[in-house]
Amino acid sequence: MTSRRQLLGAGLTALGGLASARAAEFPPETERTPGLPVLSPAYGQPSPRVAGLQRKSWSTPPLEQASSLTPLGELYGTVTPNGLFYERHHSGVPNLDPDTHRLVIHGAVSRPIAFSLEDLLRFPSVSRFHFLECTGNSGSELVKPTRETVQGTHGLLSCAEWTGVPLSILLDQAGLLPSGKWLLAEGADAGRMTRSVPIEKALDDAIIAYGQNGEPLRPEQGFPMRLFLPGWGGNLNVKWLRRLKVAAEPFYTREETSKYTDLMADGSARIFTWAMDAKSVITRPSGGQTLSGGPGPYQISGIAWSGRGRITQIEISADGGQTWRKAPLQEPVLRKCLTRFSLPWDWSGGPAILQSRAIDETGYRQPTREQLIAARGTHGAYHNNSIQSWRVDPSGKVTNIHA
Amino acid sequence: MTSRRQLLGAGLTALGGLASARAAEFPPETERTPGLPVLSPAYGQPSPRVAGLQRKSWSTPPLEQASSLTPLGELYGTVTPNGLFYERHHSGVPNLDPDTHRLVIHGAVSRPIAFSLEDLLRFPSVSRFHFLECTGNSGSELVKPTRETVQGTHGLLSCAEWTGVPLSILLDQAGLLPSGKWLLAEGADAGRMTRSVPIEKALDDAIIAYGQNGEPLRPEQGFPMRLFLPGWGGNLNVKWLRRLKVAAEPFYTREETSKYTDLMADGSARIFTWAMDAKSVITRPSGGQTLSGGPGPYQISGIAWSGRGRITQIEISADGGQTWRKAPLQEPVLRKCLTRFSLPWDWSGGPAILQSRAIDETGYRQPTREQLIAARGTHGAYHNNSIQSWRVDPSGKVTNIHA
Repeated sequence: MTSRRQLLGAGLTALGGLASARAAEFPPETERTPGLPVLSPAYGQPSPRVAGLQRKSWSTPPLEQASSLTPLGELYGTVTPNGLFYERHHSGVPNLDPDTHRLVIHGAVSRPIAFSLEDLLRFPSVSRFHFLECTGNSGSELVKPTRETVQGTHGLLSCAEWTGVPLSILLDQAGLLPSGKWLLAEGADAGRMTRSVPIEKALDDAIIAYGQNGEPLRPEQGFPMRLFLPGWGGNLNVKWLRRLKVAAEPFYTREETSKYTDLMADGSARIFTWAMDAKSVITRPSGGQTLSGGPGPYQISGIAWSGRGRITQIEISADGGQTWRKAPLQEPVLRKCLTRFSLPWDWSGGPAILQSRAIDETGYRQPTREQLIAARGTHGAYHNNSIQSWRVDPSGKVTNIHA
Repeated sequence: MTSRRQLLGAGLTALGGLASARAAEFPPETERTPGLPVLSPAYGQPSPRVAGLQRKSWSTPPLEQASSLTPLGELYGTVTPNGLFYERHHSGVPNLDPDTHRLVIHGAVSRPIAFSLEDLLRFPSVSRFHFLECTGNSGSELVKPTRETVQGTHGLLSCAEWTGVPLSILLDQAGLLPSGKWLLAEGADAGRMTRSVPIEKALDDAIIAYGQNGEPLRPEQGFPMRLFLPGWGGNLNVKWLRRLKVAAEPFYTREETSKYTDLMADGSARIFTWAMDAKSVITRPSGGQTLSGGPGPYQISGIAWSGRGRITQIEISADGGQTWRKAPLQEPVLRKCLTRFSLPWDWSGGPAILQSRAIDETGYRQPTREQLIAARGTHGAYHNNSIQSWRVDPSGKVTNIHA
């Protein structure tokens, strides 16, 4: 657990002078008529008094090819409520019947087999907290700052507790043959989303997930079952999973040749770029927000994640990267999971540029935008994990800039 | 991380013969018309195809004095979605304005102070996973089995990631005086819920929470802010918190004298029984469910928790307590948090009685009902943490019994 001394850090001494925390001998009297009884919906909803607590969606025709983004700037902690979990669909959300849906494992196995949802519930399960990030997240921000808020720049990212069966157990059941080195994962959406997955990942931490944050998967997350590959780009985590075909070679599907490859400056393309590299972003204060209390103490809070393991260090700058301070990490720090950080900051009232950078357990350090472009050029819109800058102007307004 | 070998355990070898996992060369063809576009609600909902995913509520007149219960038998993992988090209100759910609501800290402090929600956001925050359990949970089950499902027997229990400010920081700000040994916590509901809290807990792990599972507290959970006392009975976690008065002595409020005390067999009453003792329950299979696949391999899965720290061991019996087997615990095992366990079980098709018992890090062992009654008698309806029994009959039907 983080000690209070760590939490307090520099800047908090100023909190005694927090302008809006006013002296009071007794709280003002308030209404004393009984409130609403518990005739609230059997499945409850957020307070209508909270603004901005919604996904924002966009689509390119046809409408079934669309996304929605998580409002990261309105959220706390690490869990994303299922109702706000980001979406990315290539041919819409199929309406599958959990009683008739099957997952078939076939190909290079000795016993081809079909699993219903009821079958999966009879196998050992695991529940693990993991982030999920679209490979194209922040792609709009590589060349110039485009979106106003962190929902726009980083909202193709969410985190949940996933429950399901380790895929290794199901492959055991099917009798994986020595020649089986790759899987084709295919979804039951109209377009039959397909991706190749190397057997090493399938036997490591892959799960066939049917639960998310305690309840059954939502339709937009693959109900009744999906492939979940911790730390790997969103598109690989095939939703509405209907079959896994085992083979000796990868399948080179459309989504890993014409899409989801990284076109480099020299015209070559990186393919099979699976794990999401370490990345972080400050969510409060962030674009579109205002430091409405004027100069004084604030918290800088954000999230960090790595598809290669645990986050080990976060540094924060309030001067555009000239000086950096370490930020305490919220425990527990889990692998391939969002990690929350926060650090007190005493705002002078002058202009400031806020940045965060992450280091993960492999020693990898989140790059600047210049470093990323030097390595990969600007052709690609995938895998932009560079440092995000937010400018605070003297009015307290926060905007998205390139520093 | 639990190893696959641990997960498999006894019984899984039988899974190869799982009757309903059928051989298949290729999955059946399914619909290929595009699905629904992402014009889903900005705040999403569960699949309408999932039955039973709702809180069930009851009330004694007046309606504002009511509860709703979490459908534990339908859930996975450890997180309870906010829409299914249990409720218990004594005078309904007030409709508070987050812009005008204040938390006042006064009494034995050198600087009485009022905090708005905006103020709280400027202080260091923590996010922690903790269960919350009503002191009266399972009270109906002490003398005879009453409710049909685990939602009825144990549903006044949920778990979330709570975000807020450590109360110790706010007491520092107010200048806690040496004479201050107790707090009066008062809610802004019509009945002004009040409870006494010892200063040791306030300075230990108490938080003033404004976030739950990533988003702002829901109205029924205390929006815009509540007291959260990890591991302590639900009623002490005062919702819609409006003031904390610091004093030298406890306040002996109605809710800790006429209510929420434990009447013992000899007529004396235990008062200030704060921490919830270690407890566990099997959620699958549980009352009202059916082992519809006939004899063969199943998973026995459930949850355990302790208000005094971490769960260290879970044992499961399938023969009414004659023999016990250790069940692996799902990582991470967090303090004062739900811990998920599961164990393979090969059902012979004969009658069986399923039970679980928990041990926590203090060495405390969850009691049998007989042990609990021997120690405390049957006058009290609070703090029933005894072992729950589910009977499986040869048809596969599961019922609530006293074994």
